[in-house]
Amino acid sequence: MSSSLALSQQIQFLKEIDQLKSVVRKSPLIDQSRKENSAEHSWHLAMYALILKDTADEPINVERVIKMLLIHDIVEIDAGDHPIHETSDNSVQEATEQAAADRIFGLLPTEQGIELKSLWYEFEAAESADARFAKSLDRLQPLVHNIETQGGTWVEGKVSKEQVTSRYGSVISKGSKALWQVASKWVESHFSNR
Amino acid sequence: MSSSLALSQQIQFLKEIDQLKSVVRKSPLIDQSRKENSAEHSWHLAMYALILKDTADEPINVERVIKMLLIHDIVEIDAGDHPIHETSDNSVQEATEQAAADRIFGLLPTEQGIELKSLWYEFEAAESADARFAKSLDRLQPLVHNIETQGGTWVEGKVSKEQVTSRYGSVISKGSKALWQVASKWVESHFSNR
Ligand SMILES: [Ca+2]
Repeated sequence: MSSSLALSQQIQFLKEIDQLKSVVRKSPLIDQSRKENSAEHSWHLAMYALILKDTADEPINVERVIKMLLIHDIVEIDAGDHPIHETSDNSVQEATEQAAADRIFGLLPTEQGIELKSLWYEFEAAESADARFAKSLDRLQPLVHNIETQGGTWVEGKVSKEQVTSRYGSVISKGSKALWQVASKWVESHFSNR
Repeated sequence: MSSSLALSQQIQFLKEIDQLKSVVRKSPLIDQSRKENSAEHSWHLAMYALILKDTADEPINVERVIKMLLIHDIVEIDAGDHPIHETSDNSVQEATEQAAADRIFGLLPTEQGIELKSLWYEFEAAESADARFAKSLDRLQPLVHNIETQGGTWVEGKVSKEQVTSRYGSVISKGSKALWQVASKWVESHFSNR
């Protein structure tokens, strides 16, 4: 049972994160009706983890991976989305995201806020098996959307096959060689048909 | 490791459920910029479960509750959203949703499809502690949005305090008396200020 203060902090946090639904990503929906937002993207990734858990190279805890993916983009409420194909000053971006994590997870009761913030740090660091698999799904899903939409953000950004292979393949293959094996075939066939 | 057939079925399912992002609900976002869609709603509910797990009346398995909430609206891709305040023929609605579950979860490898479909049935039946808590969150979240938007769908639908108490309170209090205790105070204060 939560205390009354804890409960009001938790409800405040749950209201605050409603804003993730208004953070618009570069990636299109598959039907191309509009761009995807970061809240529905997070739902989709949690489903990717649930469905594709057996493709991870290392033993993973799928429930932890799901939680990680549910919260992985929450910092974007303050820090915005940073697309794969845009270069930016990484140290500035990191500082902005850390401040966002402090503020937003800081709305929660202390212990719960610390727990979620450290799960987010684990995702960002990509040094655990769970985080490596989560990162690989976060890279696979927009790749699927680009393949399904005749190139999607790759066309807009004039991204080459070599750039896709290095920017997506490097991350996907660290979590699941099986997933990169099929995805690299889609990439091959996509670029050979252009 | 998934077989190559299993993996292509799984990817097909993950592409198919992208359509949940285009199922628009009655509930507004808190900033009232637009109505919520069922994919981002599912993400938000998974976060509600993660954050509010300790408010459940009965012992629950929060990871199961999260999975249940991630998939609970997937049938809407075929069957549409059915708002709380609209009466409709329940048996027709049930048959439509069951057909949707058969079709959509049927895209998955057999065993995985059966597993998720029975998790969805469990949610619908609302007879387990996990399902009761999931249902209570599914009712709490739109209540919060209505409170935060000066009545939201209650104004549109001319819904009375007594109707809110019976339609929301009955479901929320079955999963968490603590949550209905605070939510009923918001409802009281909302209707007394109108
Ligand atoms: Ca992401």
